[in-house]
Amino acid sequence: MENQSKDRLSDPSIRRIFENKNFVFMSSLMEDGSPQVTPTWVDIEDNNILINTAIGRVKHRNITRDPRVALAIVDMNNPYNMVSIRGKVIDQVTGDEAEKHIDKMAKKYIGKDKYPYRTYDEKRVILKIAPISVFQIK
Amino acid sequence: MENQSKDRLSDPSIRRIFENKNFVFMSSLMEDGSPQVTPTWVDIEDNNILINTAIGRVKHRNITRDPRVALAIVDMNNPYNMVSIRGKVIDQVTGDEAEKHIDKMAKKYIGKDKYPYRTYDEKRVILKIAPISVFQIK
Repeated sequence: MENQSKDRLSDPSIRRIFENKNFVFMSSLMEDGSPQVTPTWVDIEDNNILINTAIGRVKHRNITRDPRVALAIVDMNNPYNMVSIRGKVIDQVTGDEAEKHIDKMAKKYIGKDKYPYRTYDEKRVILKIAPISVFQIK
Repeated sequence: MENQSKDRLSDPSIRRIFENKNFVFMSSLMEDGSPQVTPTWVDIEDNNILINTAIGRVKHRNITRDPRVALAIVDMNNPYNMVSIRGKVIDQVTGDEAEKHIDKMAKKYIGKDKYPYRTYDEKRVILKIAPISVFQIK
């Protein structure tokens, strides 16, 4: 079944893929307009997808220049249940909220209370992504 | 360990990720320059990554307009072994070779001799992707 609508983020079968410990593959645009894609932890709130990265990383530099992104996620328990999203970074949240959020992600993905991979000068940022289109194949 | 070089495709630990039944997440560019990303089966030959799609699909239309792509793949046996590639589609192969190749992919991923999802008017195409940069995190 294929289905496309930006409102589909409220669909329980889509939310479940994001709530489980699946990686999302996020694509952003390099300075020359070519795509880049990396796997990353992911969170979902009401109508947005949240990605937590470190300030200054390629992903963060890319979306600060051009907020257009795409995401794809596959359910590891059923790899033929997939969601592909095109959207836009509508907000960047830094400070305490972002630092607490990466700990929440560490809890979700690796069962640790504190994110263990921090470097001494790293500052986290939450990218809030609003979907433009949500496409599911299952 | 992070490592970046276009010659890294010869690295056995990278080849193994592509040879196993892992999906690759391929990003291409929509007409307005925004990224799109979808999971897909993947093959590797000497120096190129091969993706088999159907002629006329979004992915195929995108790379025919702009050959710049990005790929990311994660080893399902160890999700913290990841490869991210930026590259370019340097060739499109259609006809018998592409039809046989999708059967080879079906054998690899779902153990079937014949690709079972063909639609009656579908024509397959192999996208040959030459890496520009290969980035591994493990």
